Amino acid sequence: MVFSSFDLRLHPRYSINFAPYMSKRYESLGVSSGKEDVHHAIRNLDKGLYPNAFCKVLPDLVAKDPDYVNFIHADTAGTKGCLAYLDWKENKTDRVWGNLAVDALVMNLDDLACVGCVTDIVISSTIGRNKQLIPAEVIEHIIEGTQEFISKMKEFGVRIYSGGGETADVGDIVRTIDVGITAFARTAKKQLIINDIRPGQVIVGLASFGQAVYENEYNSGIGSNGLTAARHDTLDKSYLSYEESYSPQTNKEFVYTGKFKLADQFIVEDTSYRIGDLLLSPTRTFLPLFMELFNQCHSEIKGIIHCTGGAQTKVKKFISDVKIVKDNLFQLPPVFELLRQHSLCSPKELYEVYNMGHRMELYTDENTADKIIAISQSMNIEAKIIGRVESSMHPEVEIISSLGHFNY
Amino acid sequence: MVFSSFDLRLHPRYSINFAPYMSKRYESLGVSSGKEDVHHAIRNLDKGLYPNAFCKVLPDLVAKDPDYVNFIHADTAGTKGCLAYLDWKENKTDRVWGNLAVDALVMNLDDLACVGCVTDIVISSTIGRNKQLIPAEVIEHIIEGTQEFISKMKEFGVRIYSGGGETADVGDIVRTIDVGITAFARTAKKQLIINDIRPGQVIVGLASFGQAVYENEYNSGIGSNGLTAARHDTLDKSYLSYEESYSPQTNKEFVYTGKFKLADQFIVEDTSYRIGDLLLSPTRTFLPLFMELFNQCHSEIKGIIHCTGGAQTKVKKFISDVKIVKDNLFQLPPVFELLRQHSLCSPKELYEVYNMGHRMELYTDENTADKIIAISQSMNIEAKIIGRVESSMHPEVEIISSLGHFNY
Repeated sequence: MVFSSFDLRLHPRYSINFAPYMSKRYESLGVSSGKEDVHHAIRNLDKGLYPNAFCKVLPDLVAKDPDYVNFIHADTAGTKGCLAYLDWKENKTDRVWGNLAVDALVMNLDDLACVGCVTDIVISSTIGRNKQLIPAEVIEHIIEGTQEFISKMKEFGVRIYSGGGETADVGDIVRTIDVGITAFARTAKKQLIINDIRPGQVIVGLASFGQAVYENEYNSGIGSNGLTAARHDTLDKSYLSYEESYSPQTNKEFVYTGKFKLADQFIVEDTSYRIGDLLLSPTRTFLPLFMELFNQCHSEIKGIIHCTGGAQTKVKKFISDVKIVKDNLFQLPPVFELLRQHSLCSPKELYEVYNMGHRMELYTDENTADKIIAISQSMNIEAKIIGRVESSMHPEVEIISSLGHFNY
Repeated sequence: MVFSSFDLRLHPRYSINFAPYMSKRYESLGVSSGKEDVHHAIRNLDKGLYPNAFCKVLPDLVAKDPDYVNFIHADTAGTKGCLAYLDWKENKTDRVWGNLAVDALVMNLDDLACVGCVTDIVISSTIGRNKQLIPAEVIEHIIEGTQEFISKMKEFGVRIYSGGGETADVGDIVRTIDVGITAFARTAKKQLIINDIRPGQVIVGLASFGQAVYENEYNSGIGSNGLTAARHDTLDKSYLSYEESYSPQTNKEFVYTGKFKLADQFIVEDTSYRIGDLLLSPTRTFLPLFMELFNQCHSEIKGIIHCTGGAQTKVKKFISDVKIVKDNLFQLPPVFELLRQHSLCSPKELYEVYNMGHRMELYTDENTADKIIAISQSMNIEAKIIGRVESSMHPEVEIISSLGHFNY
C-alpha cells in the first residue's frame, strides 16, 4: 500500500503531529538536498579511475606507483555553523566550536572510508569568518577540537595529520563563520572498496546515534546534512533578531518557523534532551569501526554509502538497474522524532534531507552482515539489516517505514 | 630623512593627490593585513620540519620516503569574489569568474613555489555560494577557468591535477560566493628552498604587472590581497545598494568611499584602463618562470617571499636579526597609482596591504640576480634588484620610495 502525502496527513498516526509541510521545504530555504544544478555544472569533469566509487579515485599522482591511488576531498560543516553561532551567542556554549570542527572533519573522513581509506590522511582547514562577530577565541576552540579529535582517533589506530590551514577575514562575504576541511590520502589499490551493488545483497545500517566506545557523550545522530531545514523548522521567530544567521533573500515567512529556543527541552519516552544539543551533536565518525571491519571482512563488503546529501536516497547515484528496498529502518532517534514532528518537510522529503537513524550503509551477504553487526555492537554502535537489493529495470529506492511507503 | 604621515601630507608631492587617509584603514573594514589574532590563535601548532620555510613542510606522510616531503596548502580568492560579483551583476562580465578561479589557484600555487614546489600539484576546490544570487552558470565559469589555467600551465611543463571539490549551498552563511582551493604536493627534499636570508644578499623583485609570455592580456598586478580596501576605496556610494556585497557590521561611513564605477576609466600617461579590469585582473602565477629559475640557479636562491598578507613587509616573518632595505622599488603600475591616489590607507599602510609592483622577491647574490633578471625578461616579466639585506640587532624592514621613507 502506497501512502500519498495527502493520505498520510489523514492517517490517524500522523494527523496530529505533522506540521503542515510544504511541497519542497528545502528549496524554499535556498538549498537543495540533491544539488542537481551543481551536478549539471560538473557533468563534464573526469570521474576518476572508478566512476562507481563513492569518492573520486585518482591515480597515484604524487608517487607514481601503479599499486596505489590518491584522494583529495573537500567538505564543510555547512550551515551547522549558523546553529553553532546562535547557541554560542545566546547560551555561551563554547563547546559548539570544537564539535563543529569534528563535523567538517568527519564529513570528509567518512566519505573516504566508503572507498576503503581509513588512515594516513592529511587534512587542512579553510575557515572564513566575519571578524566583527567571530573573535580569535572561536578559532582557538576550532583548532583545539581538531587536535582532540585527531588524538582520540590515534588511540584507535586511525592516523590523521593536520597540515594547518587558512583563516580568512572576509566579513563582506561570510555572515558569521564557514568551516571547511580538505583531506588528501594515498591508499593501496588492494584496500579499495568500489561500489558493486547487486541483487541479493543485504544492507547493514550503522546507527548514526547513541554512544560509541570512542565518544564521550550521547550522539543524537543529526550529522551535518539538512541543518538549514532543521534550524528553521525547530527554532522560533525570536531568532529573526539574529539577522546574521539567515539569508535576506529567503522569504521571511519560511525563516525560523519552529517553536523552540536552543535551551528548551524535548522529551521523548521520559528522557529530556536539550534542543541545541540534539541539533549540534558532532557528526559521528565510523573510522575506528571501519578499521576493524576492513581487517575482518574487507573482501565481502561490496559497497558502502555515506547517507549525506540526498540522505536515504543517496545510494541512487551508485546503482544501475537495481532497486534498493529499505523496510527495516531504525526506530527514529529523538532528534529525528523532533524533526518529524516539527519539520515543514513532507515525510517523503524527510528521508531525502536527514539520515533518519543510520548514516552509513554497507552492502554485503547475509553471513557477513551478521559479522558486521557483531563487530559494530562490540564498539557500542547499533547495527542491523535495514533492507536489501532487488533486481529492477532502472535505478530506484523504496522506503517502507512507519512514516509511509515512498518511492524515489 | 624620515617622513611621518603628517609630514607627508604637507609635502608638495602628495598634498593634492592623497585622500585624507585613516590611521588604520584596513581594520576599519573588519580585516587585518597581518592577521595578528589568528597567528596568536595558532601559536602552539607544529611549525613543520623547517620553521623558516615559506610553507609548512611535512614529512612524507603519504609515502614515507625520507628523501621526500609533503605540503598541504589552503587559500581563497577572498573578497575579490565580492568585486567579481559586482562587476558581473552590473556589467555582465562573465569572464570575472574564470579569473577568480585563477586567483584562488595562484594564491596556493605561488606560495608552494616559494619552497621549491612547482609541479605535480593536486588541487581541490571548496565553493560556498548563496544559491539565491549565484546560479549554476557561475560555477561552470569557475570550473572552466580552472581547467583553462591547468591546460595553460601544462604547455609550460607545470603539471596540476584537479581532484574536483565541494560546492555548498549555504546562503545563510555566505552573502554571495566564496571560492577556495586546497593544494597537496609531494616534493623531493633536494628541490626545497628554505629561507636563509642573510646580510649581503640582494633582493630581486618580480613584477606583478605586465604581460608574461603565458598571459593572454595585460595583468594589472593587483593580486588577491588588499581587495577589501581596494574595493571600498575606489567604488562610489552607488554600490551601497548591493547590500549583499558588504558586512552590515561595518560602519557605513567606511563603505564604498571612492569615486568610481567599475565601468569607469582611469587614465595614466595617456593610457586608459577600465577600473573593473584593473581591480579584477587575475593574480599572475610565476610557476613557469620558477620552473626555469630552479633549473638554472636553484642552489643560489636563498629565499623566496610571496608578498601576500603583509605585502612588502611579509618578509619580516622569515628573518631574524637582519634589516631588509627596499630602496629601488618598481614605479607604481596603474592599479597602484589608482590606489595611491584614492586609498584611505596611509602611504605606510599601502605597503602593508598591497604588493605595489612586485609580488615575488628572491634573495640571492648579485651574479645570480643578473641571471634571474635575464631569465625573467625572456618570459616578458620585468625584474630588477629592488633592495638588499643588511645586518641589524632585530628583524626590520625599511622602505625608501617616492611615497616616503618607512620603517616596519
